Amino acid sequence: MTDSSKSPDAIASQLAHDGALVTDHLADYFDAMTSPATQLVEAMRYACLNGGKRIRAALCLSAARLAAPDDKQAFEGALMAASALEMIHAYSLIHDDLPAMDDAETRRGKPSVHIAFDEATAILAGDALQTEAFCLLSAPSSVLPSDRALRLVHELSVGSSASGMAGGQMLDLMAEALATSGKGFGVAETEQMQAMKTGALIVASPVMGAIAAGASDKLVSDLRAFATPLGIAFQVADDVLDVTADTTKMGKPVGRDKDQGKASFVDFYGLEGAKTYAHDLVQQSCDALAGYGAGANTLQMIAKFVINRSY
Amino acid sequence: MTDSSKSPDAIASQLAHDGALVTDHLADYFDAMTSPATQLVEAMRYACLNGGKRIRAALCLSAARLAAPDDKQAFEGALMAASALEMIHAYSLIHDDLPAMDDAETRRGKPSVHIAFDEATAILAGDALQTEAFCLLSAPSSVLPSDRALRLVHELSVGSSASGMAGGQMLDLMAEALATSGKGFGVAETEQMQAMKTGALIVASPVMGAIAAGASDKLVSDLRAFATPLGIAFQVADDVLDVTADTTKMGKPVGRDKDQGKASFVDFYGLEGAKTYAHDLVQQSCDALAGYGAGANTLQMIAKFVINRSY
Repeated sequence: MTDSSKSPDAIASQLAHDGALVTDHLADYFDAMTSPATQLVEAMRYACLNGGKRIRAALCLSAARLAAPDDKQAFEGALMAASALEMIHAYSLIHDDLPAMDDAETRRGKPSVHIAFDEATAILAGDALQTEAFCLLSAPSSVLPSDRALRLVHELSVGSSASGMAGGQMLDLMAEALATSGKGFGVAETEQMQAMKTGALIVASPVMGAIAAGASDKLVSDLRAFATPLGIAFQVADDVLDVTADTTKMGKPVGRDKDQGKASFVDFYGLEGAKTYAHDLVQQSCDALAGYGAGANTLQMIAKFVINRSY
Repeated sequence: MTDSSKSPDAIASQLAHDGALVTDHLADYFDAMTSPATQLVEAMRYACLNGGKRIRAALCLSAARLAAPDDKQAFEGALMAASALEMIHAYSLIHDDLPAMDDAETRRGKPSVHIAFDEATAILAGDALQTEAFCLLSAPSSVLPSDRALRLVHELSVGSSASGMAGGQMLDLMAEALATSGKGFGVAETEQMQAMKTGALIVASPVMGAIAAGASDKLVSDLRAFATPLGIAFQVADDVLDVTADTTKMGKPVGRDKDQGKASFVDFYGLEGAKTYAHDLVQQSCDALAGYGAGANTLQMIAKFVINRSY
C-alpha cells in the first residue's frame, strides 16, 4: 500500500487513493445512519462528500502506515480516525461559511451548506458532524482497543477546542475587529491564531493515525514535530494562493481575505518572502522525520505538496 | 450523601446541592482553561454558569449513588459525566436561541449568548462547549478507566447526535414549516421529535452516571426504562408551563411556542389531558425502578419534580 516514490505524480495519486478510501468510508457511514431527520443527514453528507483534498486523512493514513506497515487492523482503526478528522474539518467549514462568520456563499465550487439548505440546517449539520466524529471513534463495534480509541477522542477534541481550532477561529474574527479599529494584529498573533485555527487539526491528523496504529511515544512525538511547522506552512500557502490563484481553481472567492482586512502572511513578508517562509517550514517538517528513512517519504511528500498545490 | 427522604423540600435541596457541585466543577474547569481566545472562554462560561436547574446533572449523580453508594471514585467519575452533560445542554441552548433557530433574546432571565456577546461568538461558544464535553470525558488524568470513559463518550455522542438531540431540533424546525404549510405534524411525530430533542439527553443522564459508577447492565437498562418516559414527561411539562407560567419565573418568554405554530402536547390533549399524560409517564418512570427500594427514591422524586416544577 505504501507508495514511497518521490515523484509529484505519485504523491498526487497517493492522495487521490487515500481520499477515495476515506470518502467511501464516510459515504458508507452516512448510508448506515437511520435518523428520521433526513434533511439533517443530507446536509451532513453534502458537506462531507463535497470534494476536498483530504489532506488530513492522508496525513493520518500515511502516519499509520509508517507506524505499522502491513497491519490491516491498525489501518482500519486509522481509517476511522481519518473519517472523524474529515467530519470535524467539514463541520468547521460549514460554520466558518455562515453569514455571522466569514459569510461565504460557495465552497469547493458549490453552494455553501447554508445556501444549498438554509442557515438553521447548516448550524445543525455542523453540530451533528462534530458529534458524529466522536460517536464514530467511540463505537463499541470498533476494531480499536478502548485505550487507543479514548486517546483518539482526546487528540481530536483538544485539536478542535477553544485552545485549538475553535479558539483560532475566534481569534481570527477578533483580528478583523482589531484591524478595523486600527490596532493591528502582528505577525506573532497571526502565527498563534493560525497554529490554532488550522494547525491544531493538522497536527492531530498524523498523531491520530499513529495512535490508532499503536505507535511508540517517540514516533507520536516526532510526528507532532513534523506537523507543527506544516500547519503554519499550510496557512502561508493559503495566503499565497489567495493572491495568486484564480477563483475557479480554488472553488471559493480569492482575494477576499485582503478585502476583509484579514492579517495575511503575504502582508507581513511579501509574496516571495511568504513563499520562502513556507518552504523553510516544510523543510523543518521533513527534517523531523529524517530518522525514519524511506518509510517517511510519503509524509514528507505530502508536506511538500501542501505548499506547491495550486488549489 | 444520598437523601432518600420523600418530601418535596428535601428533593429541592438535593437538586440545589447537586447543582452546586456541578456548577463548582464547571467553574474550576473553565478557570483552568488557558486558551488565548478569552472572549470565547468567557462566552462558554457565561452559558454554562448561567443558572439552570441541572436536572441532567442530578439524574447522573443520583444514578451513580444508586449504582455505587459511598464509592468516592465512582462519584468523581459521575461528576465529570454530569459536567459533560451540562456542557452539551448549554451548547444546545446557545444554538437553539440563535436568530436562525428559535431567535430567543433571553434565557434564564438574562440575555442569550448571541445578545450578550455576538452571533459569531455564540456559534463558536456552542461549538467549543460540545468539544469540551468530549475533551473532559477523555482526559488522560481522569479517574475513569478507559473502557468506562469510552462508553460515556459514546452515550453522550449518541444522545446528542442526528438520531438524538440535533436530529430532534431539526425535526422541530421542520414541524414549524409543516404547520405553516398546513400539512400539520401529528402527535406521533411530535412525540418522536421530543424523544430525540429533549429525551435523548435525559436518557443519557442517569445512564452515564451509572456507567461511570460501574453499574451492571441490568441497572443501566432499567435506568433507560426509567428515563425514556421521563424525557417525554419533561417536554409535556414544558408545554404545560408555556401556557400556565409567567415569563418572570420561566426566565424566557412564555406562550411563544404557540405563536410560532409549534406542535404542543397541550394542543393535542388539552391542558388537563396533558397534565394527566405527564403524570402517567412519570408513573411509568417510577415503576421501572420499583425493584431498587429506597435507593431509587431520589431518582423517582426528581421525576416527580420534573412535572411539578413551576419554572
